[in-house]
Amino acid sequence: MAVQYELIKRCSKTGARAGRLHTPHGTFDTPIFMPVGTQATVKAMSPHELKEMGAGIILSNTYHLYLRPGHELVAEAGGLHKFMNWDGGILTDSGGFQVFSLGPLRKITEEGVTFRSHIDGSKQFLSPERATEVQMALGADIIMAFDECVPYPADHDYARKSTERTTRWAERCKGAHTRADQALFGIVQGGMYKDLRSMSVRDLVSLDFPGYAIGGLSVGEPKDLMYEMLEHTVPLLPVNKPRYLMGVGTPDCLVEGVLHGIDMFDCVFPTRVARNGTVMTHQGRLVVKNAEYTRDFRPIDSDCGCYTCRNFSRAYIRHLLKTEEIFGLRLTTIHNLYFLIHFMKKMRQAIIEDRFLEFRAEFWSQYQK
Amino acid sequence: MAVQYELIKRCSKTGARAGRLHTPHGTFDTPIFMPVGTQATVKAMSPHELKEMGAGIILSNTYHLYLRPGHELVAEAGGLHKFMNWDGGILTDSGGFQVFSLGPLRKITEEGVTFRSHIDGSKQFLSPERATEVQMALGADIIMAFDECVPYPADHDYARKSTERTTRWAERCKGAHTRADQALFGIVQGGMYKDLRSMSVRDLVSLDFPGYAIGGLSVGEPKDLMYEMLEHTVPLLPVNKPRYLMGVGTPDCLVEGVLHGIDMFDCVFPTRVARNGTVMTHQGRLVVKNAEYTRDFRPIDSDCGCYTCRNFSRAYIRHLLKTEEIFGLRLTTIHNLYFLIHFMKKMRQAIIEDRFLEFRAEFWSQYQK
Repeated sequence: MAVQYELIKRCSKTGARAGRLHTPHGTFDTPIFMPVGTQATVKAMSPHELKEMGAGIILSNTYHLYLRPGHELVAEAGGLHKFMNWDGGILTDSGGFQVFSLGPLRKITEEGVTFRSHIDGSKQFLSPERATEVQMALGADIIMAFDECVPYPADHDYARKSTERTTRWAERCKGAHTRADQALFGIVQGGMYKDLRSMSVRDLVSLDFPGYAIGGLSVGEPKDLMYEMLEHTVPLLPVNKPRYLMGVGTPDCLVEGVLHGIDMFDCVFPTRVARNGTVMTHQGRLVVKNAEYTRDFRPIDSDCGCYTCRNFSRAYIRHLLKTEEIFGLRLTTIHNLYFLIHFMKKMRQAIIEDRFLEFRAEFWSQYQK
Repeated sequence: MAVQYELIKRCSKTGARAGRLHTPHGTFDTPIFMPVGTQATVKAMSPHELKEMGAGIILSNTYHLYLRPGHELVAEAGGLHKFMNWDGGILTDSGGFQVFSLGPLRKITEEGVTFRSHIDGSKQFLSPERATEVQMALGADIIMAFDECVPYPADHDYARKSTERTTRWAERCKGAHTRADQALFGIVQGGMYKDLRSMSVRDLVSLDFPGYAIGGLSVGEPKDLMYEMLEHTVPLLPVNKPRYLMGVGTPDCLVEGVLHGIDMFDCVFPTRVARNGTVMTHQGRLVVKNAEYTRDFRPIDSDCGCYTCRNFSRAYIRHLLKTEEIFGLRLTTIHNLYFLIHFMKKMRQAIIEDRFLEFRAEFWSQYQK
């Protein structure tokens, strides 16, 4: 099997767990945060910087790479790892989420989704078979089934029909998938309905995927509702398979996700807010672009070991951001990614030492949303 | 003396020379190309990348830093080296060139130049004393006298009056300059008139600066005219002082500049064209953004030892540029700076081995403008 999950330690009081993910491109400690490299690059970063900060798996987007530069070109280059010179793990999403986000530009049938490219308006088609074919060409270690992310809010009837179709699509993806060196994960949907989440898990698990993602959360619902869905859904998943919560990456949600037994996370949040001049600290967000940091010659976080904090002051970073210098975005991105990657490492250590609840209590006592 | 030039080897057939520049932040081999870091950052680069590619001295702009973040703030940070975390050499220009480029937004008197900030339109004033004070606060190893860059074309009368004023200003700069750990260079002007160039050199040399720049070239005149001016001017300069040709940085002009005895160069050209997708090779420019490189999986230059060429293909770099990814600009910038820095090293080696004319002949046989 291309990807295997090894359970190392379970928290005695919560669902939290520490493990290892074995992939063709290395073994990675879980829980893990995966930086997002939408277009075969984590925005503003080099692969060497990612490695240096401890990144293990990165995520890339099938939808974007399918349109530009095209999966055939990536395959010709020797696959995505070689194309972007990243020898760590890669996970590609199926393109489903992006295609469904196009709104009026797309049309869904049982066969698949017809849509117009956001780049040139050209007519395109993705189906379970096509999305799998594209992902096989890209060659990530982990690929995702083509699904519909149930929008929020959605009525029960729509959510049920959509989730049932997602399961039929997952089965078709499985049928189309032939690469032994890649793992195809199923995606649990079901909207905000527990019965549908249960149905989705049951149907997907019967197809026996090597890993399961939870999709359709963090789509605008209140956080407590997301946590409720996790509390209901995660325990239904097989204990010996990795669990991936899609699109989640703020510190508070990461702590709660881990609490409920999630192993893998991804989110554009840390890199996107970095480019807007917001950095993450254990005390919450710091808008380093703000005037109050004009003459602040301290690092972003004096306890942080990242390249940015070891070498540059808030005043310098603010200057770079105010003058729209690229190096400013690089420094804030490095810090935010390092912060989240090491935040996960700390959680893992707490799980291993069976003090995760204490870690969580300390986190919440400091964190300001 | 803060900065000293050590002559190592003179070409037996041309004016070319190899030397060393001793500064408070290190000793640097000449001839040297200095990357431009206008706003206390070489666009898209980290100081560590600059060091890794062999950069010795970088240039920063008084005009820009004076307006943002302000020289007092930089001084508070401990000076420019500390502010931007660069422990190599720094040269600041005086702001004269930028202020004069503002056109109708500035007014010149004997006292100095009144101008409006290009950022917020605020009224500002720079004079020889003020430009020197600002540069002392910034704390570069080499600072420049406040001059007027004679525009091209200019009539003889205007060029003479302007050049005479530049000399009077140079004397005032010298009077205002009190930092023993920095060297103040004079700037030779004189437009495209040999008699005025002679006059400018004679007057400046009588003030005994530790180094001399040649300004007012590469301002739109034909290249042959620039070379003619160099041929006339450089031999008039003292042999034991460094000579800096301002704003020149294309390979052809670098070869001809070195031929005539120039030791130092700076130019935004390699970094600016990099961000537009043009890279430099020994065969001339390559527009890596062009469609012909879509499926070209070779490096930009297979003989190049830069980070970009060691790790990434033309096809990948083109993809990054087409999708407007920051990492694309980083890769082209790294390549172009590495190219020029190592181009200078090769010229220096040729001078030391007394085969500079052969180097030049080989260069011109390959180079396409």
